[in-house]
Amino acid sequence: MIRVTIFNEFKHEKEDERVKAIYPDGIHNALKKGLEDEEITVKTVTLDDEECGLTKEALDNTDVLMWWGHMAHDKVPDEVALRVRDAVHEGMGAVFLHSGHHSKPFKLLMGTSCNLTWREDGDYELVWVTKPSHPIAQGIGRFIKLEHEETYGEPFAIPEPEETVFIGSFENGEVFRAGCCFKRENGRIFYFQPGHETFPTYYNEDVIKTLKNAVHWANPVYRTKIDCPHVGKPLE
Amino acid sequence: MIRVTIFNEFKHEKEDERVKAIYPDGIHNALKKGLEDEEITVKTVTLDDEECGLTKEALDNTDVLMWWGHMAHDKVPDEVALRVRDAVHEGMGAVFLHSGHHSKPFKLLMGTSCNLTWREDGDYELVWVTKPSHPIAQGIGRFIKLEHEETYGEPFAIPEPEETVFIGSFENGEVFRAGCCFKRENGRIFYFQPGHETFPTYYNEDVIKTLKNAVHWANPVYRTKIDCPHVGKPLE
Amino acid sequence: MIRVTIFNEFKHEKEDERVKAIYPDGIHNALKKGLEDEEITVKTVTLDDEECGLTKEALDNTDVLMWWGHMAHDKVPDEVALRVRDAVHEGMGAVFLHSGHHSKPFKLLMGTSCNLTWREDGDYELVWVTKPSHPIAQGIGRFIKLEHEETYGEPFAIPEPEETVFIGSFENGEVFRAGCCFKRENGRIFYFQPGHETFPTYYNEDVIKTLKNAVHWANPVYRTKIDCPHVGKPLE
Amino acid sequence: MIRVTIFNEFKHEKEDERVKAIYPDGIHNALKKGLEDEEITVKTVTLDDEECGLTKEALDNTDVLMWWGHMAHDKVPDEVALRVRDAVHEGMGAVFLHSGHHSKPFKLLMGTSCNLTWREDGDYELVWVTKPSHPIAQGIGRFIKLEHEETYGEPFAIPEPEETVFIGSFENGEVFRAGCCFKRENGRIFYFQPGHETFPTYYNEDVIKTLKNAVHWANPVYRTKIDCPHVGKPLE
Repeated sequence: MIRVTIFNEFKHEKEDERVKAIYPDGIHNALKKGLEDEEITVKTVTLDDEECGLTKEALDNTDVLMWWGHMAHDKVPDEVALRVRDAVHEGMGAVFLHSGHHSKPFKLLMGTSCNLTWREDGDYELVWVTKPSHPIAQGIGRFIKLEHEETYGEPFAIPEPEETVFIGSFENGEVFRAGCCFKRENGRIFYFQPGHETFPTYYNEDVIKTLKNAVHWANPVYRTKIDCPHVGKPLE
Repeated sequence: MIRVTIFNEFKHEKEDERVKAIYPDGIHNALKKGLEDEEITVKTVTLDDEECGLTKEALDNTDVLMWWGHMAHDKVPDEVALRVRDAVHEGMGAVFLHSGHHSKPFKLLMGTSCNLTWREDGDYELVWVTKPSHPIAQGIGRFIKLEHEETYGEPFAIPEPEETVFIGSFENGEVFRAGCCFKRENGRIFYFQPGHETFPTYYNEDVIKTLKNAVHWANPVYRTKIDCPHVGKPLE
Repeated sequence: MIRVTIFNEFKHEKEDERVKAIYPDGIHNALKKGLEDEEITVKTVTLDDEECGLTKEALDNTDVLMWWGHMAHDKVPDEVALRVRDAVHEGMGAVFLHSGHHSKPFKLLMGTSCNLTWREDGDYELVWVTKPSHPIAQGIGRFIKLEHEETYGEPFAIPEPEETVFIGSFENGEVFRAGCCFKRENGRIFYFQPGHETFPTYYNEDVIKTLKNAVHWANPVYRTKIDCPHVGKPLE
Repeated sequence: MIRVTIFNEFKHEKEDERVKAIYPDGIHNALKKGLEDEEITVKTVTLDDEECGLTKEALDNTDVLMWWGHMAHDKVPDEVALRVRDAVHEGMGAVFLHSGHHSKPFKLLMGTSCNLTWREDGDYELVWVTKPSHPIAQGIGRFIKLEHEETYGEPFAIPEPEETVFIGSFENGEVFRAGCCFKRENGRIFYFQPGHETFPTYYNEDVIKTLKNAVHWANPVYRTKIDCPHVGKPLE
């Protein structure tokens, strides 16, 4: 059983009627409902929980952390962001969603600003599979069609991804590296761009399939801190 | 002075009136005219030349080889293709254009089929810069606009590029990794997708600027064969 | 059950008494004995088999191909080498051992000469783990100690590996990228340097553990040919 | 003229007689003397300078920053470390030396702990060239021989380098990725392991040649902040 923790800042859904209409129980609960099956179990935490619900103990009991945030990135305490970073270093998997590109832990793990260009026009998006044999793309056809998404565009200020599994194109011509894999020490990281709060992206079956695949891919085979030991000679 | 050799199969321009109208002297001569300046000198060779004009001596005197081919890839003798591959291994730069993705030397250097999906509808293309600080993107804005191009789509069966400098989007929604960097032994390779024979792509100023940049980037700093020597102990 | 096929050229073991003493039934049978368990089943083929035992049908029924060759690389017919390459493109995993760096299929897949420097002094080797969380390194300590190995040295003329999991150091100071991961289209490739025919490397428990891990890692999740289709507009 | 700024914490040289004997004017001045030529000009700053000498203005006037630190990493103010990180994002080159792997800016740029194993035995080191055509390896033979160095060993907790140009082996068998290239947004980063304060490494001609090459390689072609703009439709 893979233990997933979903962090959602859970602000838009309480403040914006349009968002509330789509995700009445919050994005985290829509994702939980989509992801849970006989191999994945999900806990949810939100910004208003003490320490964002992301205590050392919570992270120690998380195989893969999923992160959705947008308007309140700076409300996540630095110590929580650093704790998430360190848990990834030790092996915890992490899946950052949509505007989570600007979350503190993602920026700490990338070492870059993760800036991008954007526009909110309700463009349709085609999320193309570039690596059909990648574990995260299994079961997806040539592309995922999303009726409406926030438009994200290049340059996306990330390090060159180890693998680019999806590239999105938008109705008015932008492109964006929509699904990117990274490793940081013992942990695996997947960034997935779709998921603007004003559109029902997380009810799309292909999106959910992709996220389930990502959970399996990021699930650690090994978890320990890489330390900085003084060592003796190897042959003694 | 960087010595560029342009190989063009030079078939379409003689057989198809539409192509002849755009490139009356052949794609190679349009490129030569665009590329030559105080730092770049160009020789051109074609499929009908003896050994495609790509003798050992010709390659030894080439800093960067540029390749355009489409309908007659199989007419390039295997020994010429292998000679080009070996010259790249030794350090010669190589720029493969458009349908050159299926040329023998490119496939030999990639180790893959380099297949892709395609459609010929005259879609417009936006060629987006993903790495604005890359030497090959200098002087280009956010994207290059091409009124009409052949549509290429993913998956593009290449190894994960070392750097993806451009991603193209097409009028009907396809995306394609349009500008990709690779190294093979001592040689640098750039693949650039624009350049269908029925459109005047090689008269576009941004395309020419990109290709000039690519020539500078691929120009070798070092050229020698990596051999397989029996060696003595390093400290004797 | 993962279906492994081991190709061994099986020449040294018949011609050289020292090798015969170590591998009386051939390297392939020593490997088969080491690898087979409740999850892995092994077939063996050799150079003297018709078509090297690597018919289209044999490859279609192989999940992961393991390759040992040294003195007779050029006796493998080109059509067999190309068939292996194409099977990897479709998704078959491949593990190339030791002097298999110069085998035809490995060179075809890399797109380089795969040259290296070498010396046969019976140096000890320490094979260091650089990525402790990589699936192929599971169960291995900080390094594998081999009493004697053929010395391989840099430069190793391969493309930059997607992941370098092991780096070996030798008694007299050489280093070598000993365990390297690549992907080519849908197939995964692992190169592992230890395994000279005059030393009992393939009886080492850590080496066998590494190769079992590599078999699991290279086992395809997806297998199909990436073709070059003419496609319609995505939104029609 | 490339404008290099060398930051040295300049502590060991004042506190430890052995170090003072080797670098009486500090490591920074030894490096300055080695690096300056008709193409490179050097300024030096130290930890005791106000803001470490790394004001916004100083960084704006630096093409490539070189960093040596060891015992006082935590004395560098966070705001200075972040300022250095941001300057690299904008395009400033950076060369981190030896124990600079644990400096605040390097860790911020990598997104990892940059831990490693270590031992101080005065082992000799051979620093092997793995990519002879890389600009940073020009003029270096097969390896650089250092009589004595601090021993660094794997695992080195960095992201997979974009290029590994040097791998070091030590007298007692350790290996270490000694010369690694990274890009972060518009800036290029080179890490180079040799340079322990108790050995005269920075008087070695090959080391100086490597560092000069690194300065040229990291010198930016382009410098600007990648921002996060709201953009209009590309075709309007």
